[in-house]
Amino acid sequence: MNALRIEKDTLMLSDIETPRRNGEALIRVLRSGICNTDLEIIKGYAGFEGTIGHEFVGIVEESLDAPGWVGKRIVGEINVGCNACDWCRSQDARHCPNRSVLGILNRDGCHAEYLTLPSRNLLEVPRDVSDDEAIFAEPLAAAYGITEQISISKDTKIAVIGDGKLGILCAWALAPKSERLFLIGKHLNKLSIAENENVEGVKLAEVSKFGRYFDVVVEASGSESGFETAMDMVKPRGKIVLKSTFKGKPTWEAWRVVVDEITIVGSRCGIFSPALDLLQDKVFDVRRLISDEFPLSDGVKAIKEAAKRDSMKIMLTMDPK
Amino acid sequence: MNALRIEKDTLMLSDIETPRRNGEALIRVLRSGICNTDLEIIKGYAGFEGTIGHEFVGIVEESLDAPGWVGKRIVGEINVGCNACDWCRSQDARHCPNRSVLGILNRDGCHAEYLTLPSRNLLEVPRDVSDDEAIFAEPLAAAYGITEQISISKDTKIAVIGDGKLGILCAWALAPKSERLFLIGKHLNKLSIAENENVEGVKLAEVSKFGRYFDVVVEASGSESGFETAMDMVKPRGKIVLKSTFKGKPTWEAWRVVVDEITIVGSRCGIFSPALDLLQDKVFDVRRLISDEFPLSDGVKAIKEAAKRDSMKIMLTMDPK
Repeated sequence: MNALRIEKDTLMLSDIETPRRNGEALIRVLRSGICNTDLEIIKGYAGFEGTIGHEFVGIVEESLDAPGWVGKRIVGEINVGCNACDWCRSQDARHCPNRSVLGILNRDGCHAEYLTLPSRNLLEVPRDVSDDEAIFAEPLAAAYGITEQISISKDTKIAVIGDGKLGILCAWALAPKSERLFLIGKHLNKLSIAENENVEGVKLAEVSKFGRYFDVVVEASGSESGFETAMDMVKPRGKIVLKSTFKGKPTWEAWRVVVDEITIVGSRCGIFSPALDLLQDKVFDVRRLISDEFPLSDGVKAIKEAAKRDSMKIMLTMDPK
Repeated sequence: MNALRIEKDTLMLSDIETPRRNGEALIRVLRSGICNTDLEIIKGYAGFEGTIGHEFVGIVEESLDAPGWVGKRIVGEINVGCNACDWCRSQDARHCPNRSVLGILNRDGCHAEYLTLPSRNLLEVPRDVSDDEAIFAEPLAAAYGITEQISISKDTKIAVIGDGKLGILCAWALAPKSERLFLIGKHLNKLSIAENENVEGVKLAEVSKFGRYFDVVVEASGSESGFETAMDMVKPRGKIVLKSTFKGKPTWEAWRVVVDEITIVGSRCGIFSPALDLLQDKVFDVRRLISDEFPLSDGVKAIKEAAKRDSMKIMLTMDPK
């Protein structure tokens, strides 16, 4: 089968064997989405080698231990735990120290014709959620995961920094909970994609008008300067949620965190179930984030397209159209 | 009167006028303590000019608006708010945007024969708390302030990094709440000062034995490497409390904070009242932290002594002995 892989620091389309992993379900991928984390992995973040990609929708082809899944259209939680540690026993593999992570850590990912996952990682996609929408289950779960970590009420003043896909999904996911949410970005076209009755876009150059106004600032820009912007916007004793992962060691003014008693909350993966609910409820239209699609055979080209400044979500299709 | 001052980046003992500040109480300082923040201020942190020092015990000499204070032996909260903003109206001047801070921001400090503070900032020192002990009200309040920000139970595994004064006070203040508290430091002599039935000292070189074990790691080392050590010791979804303020922009691996969903809590000043209770209860003996005392007239020499690696708390005395 074809798979888009990092091998010895080089991105390539490779013809490899269809994967088998003891007892796991075999899934035929219908579509996958390219995430900025894929781009960071290509640059060397996480030191991963293998098939990249962790956002997908697919059909279960085989599932020996849970045959009821065969034929179902599914998405899959990307963290696969050891099933034995304290984390896994509390039904949360996201921090299992022995975990593998789809397309990120010790596990081939989804930019391929097939992948495997344990059946316990699978969730059926509701009928009225399209393939294109289902791709967003993973990043939307990551966005909505913020609500697992901090409490947000109608009065919570929230700024989301970053008008890329992740920033917009964070804004969309959090906005129904707050009456004062602003999305901060550099690109008017992206801000206009994001804006809806709950989300107001603000150009980065204009944020000084707020002063230190926000109870919560979500840093989803993926840039080093995003954290400094967040520090300038958050109230004393406010919270900065870090969503972006990127390679490197940026600098930070730790003393300001102390003096203003800021809380910084690292936030990675969310659980899929509420994200599927959000997709089913159509509170916002994630398809507005899709800027293009490519067949898997053009995967290398698709990655180049995804790295362009104006790109939003680039899809890969595994079926011939 | 004599005052130990920073003027144009230079530390000097100056003869200045006894301070007056509209309506504030005039306090004759009995003793003051030199804090690492004083040393950072001398290096340029906070850009302060004026009389340094913020740990003291004194006697109220004048108090026009609240004459009942006259003659009382007091300590004083160091943040003076505007009394009008939202923070001040909620009885907490610590984040008032217009605040002054004793010896740190827009307000002459306590390494002087006299200082002024509003009477609302004063707390009477209980009779069975000595002058030497009372000096510790401020740093102990800062240490105990951590309990205002995060919850600690008997089962909470805590490491405090840094065997300086602040680290030891943090360990002493938190240890009665947890059955598993360890103080991490480089100096056996300081660790042995710190150890008691609740606090176990561990050499920094030996922390790898714990692995990523701790629910809470308090970074009180005042060094850039302290944060990295904290990251290596804290559990996924654990908390790092930042206590040290120092000038500069260290680097940090922000991506690790995201992947492991660490929460970082900046922590500065605490309220004095529980600190005075701790001093009165004699749960630990803060006087073990005093390494020397100097008369104010030798203030410049005292600061040099405080900057030495082996020094702990250096006291200044304003009364001739």
